[in-house]
Amino acid sequence: MHPIKIGGSLTYEAEPLLKALKDYANEKNKEIVIIPGGGEFANVVRKIDKTLNISNSLSHKLAIKCMDLIGEVYAELGNIKAYDTLFDLKKEIKNEKIAILLPSKLLLSTDIAEHSWAITSDSLSLYIGRLLDVREIIIATDVDGIYDKFPEGKLLNIINANDIKGLTSVDETFPILLKKFKMNAYVVNGKYPERVIDILEGKHTLCTKIIGKE
Amino acid sequence: MHPIKIGGSLTYEAEPLLKALKDYANEKNKEIVIIPGGGEFANVVRKIDKTLNISNSLSHKLAIKCMDLIGEVYAELGNIKAYDTLFDLKKEIKNEKIAILLPSKLLLSTDIAEHSWAITSDSLSLYIGRLLDVREIIIATDVDGIYDKFPEGKLLNIINANDIKGLTSVDETFPILLKKFKMNAYVVNGKYPERVIDILEGKHTLCTKIIGKE
Repeated sequence: MHPIKIGGSLTYEAEPLLKALKDYANEKNKEIVIIPGGGEFANVVRKIDKTLNISNSLSHKLAIKCMDLIGEVYAELGNIKAYDTLFDLKKEIKNEKIAILLPSKLLLSTDIAEHSWAITSDSLSLYIGRLLDVREIIIATDVDGIYDKFPEGKLLNIINANDIKGLTSVDETFPILLKKFKMNAYVVNGKYPERVIDILEGKHTLCTKIIGKE
Repeated sequence: MHPIKIGGSLTYEAEPLLKALKDYANEKNKEIVIIPGGGEFANVVRKIDKTLNISNSLSHKLAIKCMDLIGEVYAELGNIKAYDTLFDLKKEIKNEKIAILLPSKLLLSTDIAEHSWAITSDSLSLYIGRLLDVREIIIATDVDGIYDKFPEGKLLNIINANDIKGLTSVDETFPILLKKFKMNAYVVNGKYPERVIDILEGKHTLCTKIIGKE
């Protein structure tokens, strides 16, 4: 099974990627699980938190529910079925080949992650990947990968999770969890569906591979 | 039971109103049900709809789920318990006196309203009021009431639902439903909690009463 987190920053540009992944999954008989980010909905949570100083737990809960909302949008844009339990998703993906996870039920029922903005949908997708027992995850976002400095740095083809520091396109807990779970990740620009397909095909492409597995 | 819809436009200023209502409900032994609007979360749905032209049904569903998110914020700000069924709400409000309804479960399970932007949380609160079997509802928003023209009109103390036309602070279906359900409504500025309390006390105050019951 291939989990691909599609960041909410891609909301307005996700349709070509969703359609390409659906076609690819069916043509190549691969099982793809799409995990949505919270996008602009989660930005509203950040604003409410900043203005009203709500609890970390409430911010965490609301931001997770925002992932469901973007997931519903992705489901309609890509004409892909969405599921709110891994039970249903695993049952149906055998026929459908591609599925969107609406993760709030899973994430709130398990309460698996720290309640903090250091955990965003990037890190949450790793917890989900772990439950799916995968060793690799793709993070599709709106930049080409991770740069050696920001701004105006050089794109890194590969980096060890230990070496990720400071401002990057993934949240700060992500490299820590990646090592803990012994997983690798690819950060790739989802505006170019062919790059995401290249990763699924094991081909070299423009992206950053993060090594969390020694 | 007294349903009060607190518009999402009040998100950043709702705390004094929520606290005043909680105190009032307990002091005067009145049962108050708070129905949240969708606020800036619902604005994100509008933007996604405008940009991606998603279906009316999806917009409707997402906007309803946004009401839950603001409801959770109100619950924390006002230290008021929130319920996602009228069964639980009615059971607990006897002791709590005040309750927040997270309405998505009720609204999606009953699918009671048209899927259109002509129906917003204003009209949805009337459907909920009807299920609660009330004859009056308070709409707390960020303006003082309904004006005879917009902008720079005169505030109306009272208006028949038949006479509401064009731009007002309630959605376009609201007056139609108000008549159909034979209900009256008060549109009041929620930034002034004392005005909302005045309405609950049956006192004259700055607001607009909309007559839907002949």
